[in-house]
Amino acid sequence: MRIKAIVSYDGTAYGGWQLQKNAPSIQGELERVLFELCGRRIPVQSAGRTDARVHALAMPVHFDIETSIPPEKLPFVFNRSLPPDIRMTSACRADGFHARFDAKGKTYRYAIWNAPHASALERDRSMHFPYALDIGRMRRAAGMLEGTHDFAAFAASGAQTRTTVRTVKSAEITGQAGDMIYFTVTGNGFLYNMVRIMTGTLLSVGNGRMEPEQVLRALESGKRSDAGFTAEPQGLMLMEVYYD
Amino acid sequence: MRIKAIVSYDGTAYGGWQLQKNAPSIQGELERVLFELCGRRIPVQSAGRTDARVHALAMPVHFDIETSIPPEKLPFVFNRSLPPDIRMTSACRADGFHARFDAKGKTYRYAIWNAPHASALERDRSMHFPYALDIGRMRRAAGMLEGTHDFAAFAASGAQTRTTVRTVKSAEITGQAGDMIYFTVTGNGFLYNMVRIMTGTLLSVGNGRMEPEQVLRALESGKRSDAGFTAEPQGLMLMEVYYD
Repeated sequence: MRIKAIVSYDGTAYGGWQLQKNAPSIQGELERVLFELCGRRIPVQSAGRTDARVHALAMPVHFDIETSIPPEKLPFVFNRSLPPDIRMTSACRADGFHARFDAKGKTYRYAIWNAPHASALERDRSMHFPYALDIGRMRRAAGMLEGTHDFAAFAASGAQTRTTVRTVKSAEITGQAGDMIYFTVTGNGFLYNMVRIMTGTLLSVGNGRMEPEQVLRALESGKRSDAGFTAEPQGLMLMEVYYD
Repeated sequence: MRIKAIVSYDGTAYGGWQLQKNAPSIQGELERVLFELCGRRIPVQSAGRTDARVHALAMPVHFDIETSIPPEKLPFVFNRSLPPDIRMTSACRADGFHARFDAKGKTYRYAIWNAPHASALERDRSMHFPYALDIGRMRRAAGMLEGTHDFAAFAASGAQTRTTVRTVKSAEITGQAGDMIYFTVTGNGFLYNMVRIMTGTLLSVGNGRMEPEQVLRALESGKRSDAGFTAEPQGLMLMEVYYD
């Protein structure tokens, strides 16, 4: 029976979503619980990967199990064995569902702590940027990222992919809560490190070290060096994944 | 020279504000940095104490030092030595200022995660309450806590204090962000565990296990057993302390 489940996690203590040898991973923890439950290795497929220290509010996953436990009870079973920084928040039967191939879009949010001193409380959920930011300039640059473009300049070099064309449906500076600024972006897919490079670019624009129009130049040239720096991982959170 | 400073901290890893033998404390960390700076023990006085795992967005403190460092540079000096879950966010010279005796009021906020499963991301900043809550009933009960009352029923037994009469200026359920409910209370002073017992009482009222009017009975009788349970520490955050 195919199960679709939603998993929320604090990525601080993990080497990332993906199973790996030298660090704990979200996938590894979920597969460990499945092994305890079923006595054999069952792979867990997510909508995508997240890097070390990156968080997910709601990461869809799928896996196949034969069990008499009703699917909607699975989160209670998983949460008894999962560490407290990973929670399964819902599960249902979903025949034919594929968490990755069926995904039509994703929303990410990047949190920027814009104050002279880092935040004691938000330190693992934000990037500390102590320099002045012009939100108006950041909004202008963010607007230029919207649409269907070749985002080659906004991908970590060396990443392999069939095409670097993606559609960004919205890219917005979504409100300031005290010293926190959020950059929220929705698209049909993202290249490796794309949101973090977009964020680094917006920070350079906001701080005056780069002109907003540099975004257009980077989209045109496809050169990584025309875009900004890669913002730190811990500010990034996968918010939602969309399906038909 | 007397310094007034504001300190923000994540209380998760600490035995509480106060210096203690068997656990790290916020006071201990600040005094350690002062010792490194001045070569002798200098006591740090806060506006109040917080329990193990309780947080502070802005805790005012004072201490006396002789130094050539301009007071406004002290946060940078402290933050180089403090662990990342404690940050000094501002400091200034404040002759005659006393963080505790001059405090005229405080605002606390209690965070309740009201969902079937705990939050992976907010687990150290909220109490997980998986049962149904009627916000309207909670608001009615919160309103009854406002005003000048004898809050003896809302204090941990055994706590010593001159009088148990306090004035609660406002006690409000301040908005729901997703699954999070906040209870925010401002008063001229608080008895030991008072906000946590108020919160436990509101949760019992919201869940239907207690009538809102029970709040009036508890205020009248002064009996601890007439109020609700003591909510968990990690949901509590000191938000602000007021001075003339």
